[in-house]
Amino acid sequence: MARETLSLYDTTLRDGAQTHGVDFSLEDKLLIAEQLDRLGLDYVEAGYPGANPIDTELFSKDREVGTKVTAFGMTKRPGRSISNDPGFQALLAAEADAICLVGKTWDFHVDVALGITLEENLAGIKESVEAVVASGREALLDCEHFFDGYKANAPYALECAKTAYDAGARWVVLCDTNGGTLPEEVEAIVADVVANIPGDHVGIHVHNDTDNGVANSLAAVRAGARQIQGTLNGVGERCGNANLTSIIPTLLLKSGYADRFETNISPEKLSTLTHASRVLDEMLNQAPDRHAPYVGEAAFAHKGGIHVSAVKKDPRTYEHVPPESVGNVRKLLVSNQGGRSNILAQLESIGLTVSKDDPRVGRLVELVKEREAVGYAYEAAEASFELLARRMLETVPQFFDIDSFRVMVERRHNALGELVTISEATVKARVDGNSVMSVGEGNGPINALDNALRKDLGPYQSYIDDLKLVDYKVRILTGGTDAVTRVLVESRDGEGRRWFTVGVSPNIVDASFEALLDSINYKLIRDGAPAPS
Amino acid sequence: MARETLSLYDTTLRDGAQTHGVDFSLEDKLLIAEQLDRLGLDYVEAGYPGANPIDTELFSKDREVGTKVTAFGMTKRPGRSISNDPGFQALLAAEADAICLVGKTWDFHVDVALGITLEENLAGIKESVEAVVASGREALLDCEHFFDGYKANAPYALECAKTAYDAGARWVVLCDTNGGTLPEEVEAIVADVVANIPGDHVGIHVHNDTDNGVANSLAAVRAGARQIQGTLNGVGERCGNANLTSIIPTLLLKSGYADRFETNISPEKLSTLTHASRVLDEMLNQAPDRHAPYVGEAAFAHKGGIHVSAVKKDPRTYEHVPPESVGNVRKLLVSNQGGRSNILAQLESIGLTVSKDDPRVGRLVELVKEREAVGYAYEAAEASFELLARRMLETVPQFFDIDSFRVMVERRHNALGELVTISEATVKARVDGNSVMSVGEGNGPINALDNALRKDLGPYQSYIDDLKLVDYKVRILTGGTDAVTRVLVESRDGEGRRWFTVGVSPNIVDASFEALLDSINYKLIRDGAPAPS
Repeated sequence: MARETLSLYDTTLRDGAQTHGVDFSLEDKLLIAEQLDRLGLDYVEAGYPGANPIDTELFSKDREVGTKVTAFGMTKRPGRSISNDPGFQALLAAEADAICLVGKTWDFHVDVALGITLEENLAGIKESVEAVVASGREALLDCEHFFDGYKANAPYALECAKTAYDAGARWVVLCDTNGGTLPEEVEAIVADVVANIPGDHVGIHVHNDTDNGVANSLAAVRAGARQIQGTLNGVGERCGNANLTSIIPTLLLKSGYADRFETNISPEKLSTLTHASRVLDEMLNQAPDRHAPYVGEAAFAHKGGIHVSAVKKDPRTYEHVPPESVGNVRKLLVSNQGGRSNILAQLESIGLTVSKDDPRVGRLVELVKEREAVGYAYEAAEASFELLARRMLETVPQFFDIDSFRVMVERRHNALGELVTISEATVKARVDGNSVMSVGEGNGPINALDNALRKDLGPYQSYIDDLKLVDYKVRILTGGTDAVTRVLVESRDGEGRRWFTVGVSPNIVDASFEALLDSINYKLIRDGAPAPS
Repeated sequence: MARETLSLYDTTLRDGAQTHGVDFSLEDKLLIAEQLDRLGLDYVEAGYPGANPIDTELFSKDREVGTKVTAFGMTKRPGRSISNDPGFQALLAAEADAICLVGKTWDFHVDVALGITLEENLAGIKESVEAVVASGREALLDCEHFFDGYKANAPYALECAKTAYDAGARWVVLCDTNGGTLPEEVEAIVADVVANIPGDHVGIHVHNDTDNGVANSLAAVRAGARQIQGTLNGVGERCGNANLTSIIPTLLLKSGYADRFETNISPEKLSTLTHASRVLDEMLNQAPDRHAPYVGEAAFAHKGGIHVSAVKKDPRTYEHVPPESVGNVRKLLVSNQGGRSNILAQLESIGLTVSKDDPRVGRLVELVKEREAVGYAYEAAEASFELLARRMLETVPQFFDIDSFRVMVERRHNALGELVTISEATVKARVDGNSVMSVGEGNGPINALDNALRKDLGPYQSYIDDLKLVDYKVRILTGGTDAVTRVLVESRDGEGRRWFTVGVSPNIVDASFEALLDSINYKLIRDGAPAPS
């Protein structure tokens, strides 16, 4: 029997960005969109064009991605025509493959929040969807508060949904905006909707306020909905959105779903899930949830004794799916075999071929473990991992040496009585046999140090002229008795290539310097700079 | 119609303690048991008597609590009699109201892990349960891997459960040990069990490996099970146990449960839930999950002008239950998405009463907008917002002034040829008319500056002695033409209170200094430090 198609819609960059403390830059959004595209999501809802400068810029240019980039906005303002609604016009002007509108479907909200009649609201939905369709874009309607609306006035909520469908909406998305609906309610209500609108035009968008975000999404699919909206790691306001990081592997791996449905996510793509989840956490500058289903560091961790020996006999004794299917690894706390296959896969992906029995692989596994135990995060800093691996497996030139550095920051009143802060750094290096001393200023100590370091690297200078520090993230880790600082540096070159490096030290300047050095060395190696003569 | 009774069983102290890194002392266990008793749990599974000194001591004395203190252990060892099994004897010797035994019900495990016949396993269950009943204690059987067992060999799994029930077990508890079963499967399988064993003798114990721990527990109740086992905050190995902190309010507050069932938890007890959840986090020395359903700090947080003004009109517009029902509070966030109504609500919540027409409110709204446009993030730094607001609305003492500071970081080889990095800072301040110059060292420039700043604040020193820098986060914002650095500082005092402050500058040291100053000033104001004489 042919399997039915499920559509997956990510709103990390829009609804996820509503989260307390989340504040994506344009660079963040582009990088996350790239991860989502690679993972195989059908739609990426990227923001609100017209609402803020970042989203407007994001939607100002065309992109070459497989996923449908979707703009989000409101149905037209009551009492105005489409042509006279600047917000709606900004939406229509966006470079987007699809436009998702949010409209009201709960009579109480139409009355209390909008203050218009139920008929006016229906007309607004109809005109808005028709305008999107007329613009040549795919239209979606997010039915805000659909479930609360259905419980209060089912015929009206259904009429709103049906109006959008009749007006040409590709997807009518049922939203549990307040997140309070329970799975059995979702299942019954979606079943009623699907009796009125074909299920392959019905989507589900839920929040996690009762800890049932995943279950509610699955209940809707069982009842006939064929699009699921959610976010990576379940980020989102209040208690988060439906967690796609949990939903996707369930759909692809578990009986009752894997045998009934197909998605755009291949097994290979699924195995990038853990990585995508961790990258998002790094962008948000937050520690990954160790206990996250499927992708958490502890999701396949087994304690010593009975569990470990049973798992070694047969993993199915204590594992419901194989960890490698989602790109995660088993952790047996008595064994170090967990990391080896992972490291081998990583070496292969950066083009370093090595026999799996090579003893250096075992030493590399140990080294990565030791360094991660003190705070390094190679998952998020692949350039630093690559340097570490190349130094163990091949001969990497020592392009230059640093003898010493000094950084000074001073805040004082200048001769005019103005408060000024000055940052200055000096670096003493040996390059190609010559001693070089450089001084740099900057808008802060790290910037000054970076400027001094890159001022004169002799024959290597031309290789790093186009190197740019794009982002810089700092975390304080309090793993052991002493707090250490982890610095992640994102660099970019003139060709638009990006890479991440990591440094760890109790001293933020040392940690930053280490990450900066890794970044320069990575660039020199990748561009084939020659060894010193 | 009379409501049916649901029994609630907490295993935070036993299954929750299996979590990697969790290590409860006897005092921890007693304190958590007290919280659970106060909350109204029917059973508290407190540990494995005989397995370790803490649990043995815990079960060595009688306690005066309402909850049934339950000891956990294995069914008797295969090939031995009860009287000849020291582990089982330790269990029987425990001062416990009930004894919960774990037994195997998956034929594959009986074969692979125990290596005995299916009949021997049934006999072991029967004898073990009978021995507990004969000792005068209430007996429970945790049916390990019941759902996987049922899928592999339903008649055998059912026979195991039935054997325990026939032998006198008060509760036969169906465990999803690997956590991979989905809600629709749980519902169907529990329904079949309840056709064989009365539902008021059937319990459910699930893990969260597919993010359906809560949904699976509720599905079992819908199918007829009448005891739910889980843990506070969902702690537990791998992805955790069923989260009682989410399940309990759903049972008590939501339609379909609140109207059908009764538990031992009164509305007054329910309002201690948020507190109990936070206390457990404190015992585990971990930051509470901001996004936890019902009890998280963000669970009732509203961002954005439209949401905030609707919530103020009627909280039901964006809240599925009242926050105070679980002892939580509503949070109206200050952010560039919100306007005047947001700020007014925020002022009210920090106890600053001001007329909504006061022109200073308009100026504060503008100021917050201007500062957020250059990078400040007041929604994540409420203490900095409070300072800003108080400075505009009341007279805030200028406790001290900073004239200048200087920070130096130097990396060099010391006399022994070792590479060392030294950080040193000097701060020149005026406190209470006196000029004070302090010097501090640290493991980095910010730490050195913090140490220098807090070395001698004259009459204010005693107010800040217990102030501790807990976390420190840095972001580079590339919004405009120049990159600026945002620093968020989390502080804590001796009473466990935490607050966040923010600083923004192109210079990380300046930004950090600003956030540190805000933190100190916030503490001085909150603790009522007097203005300088």
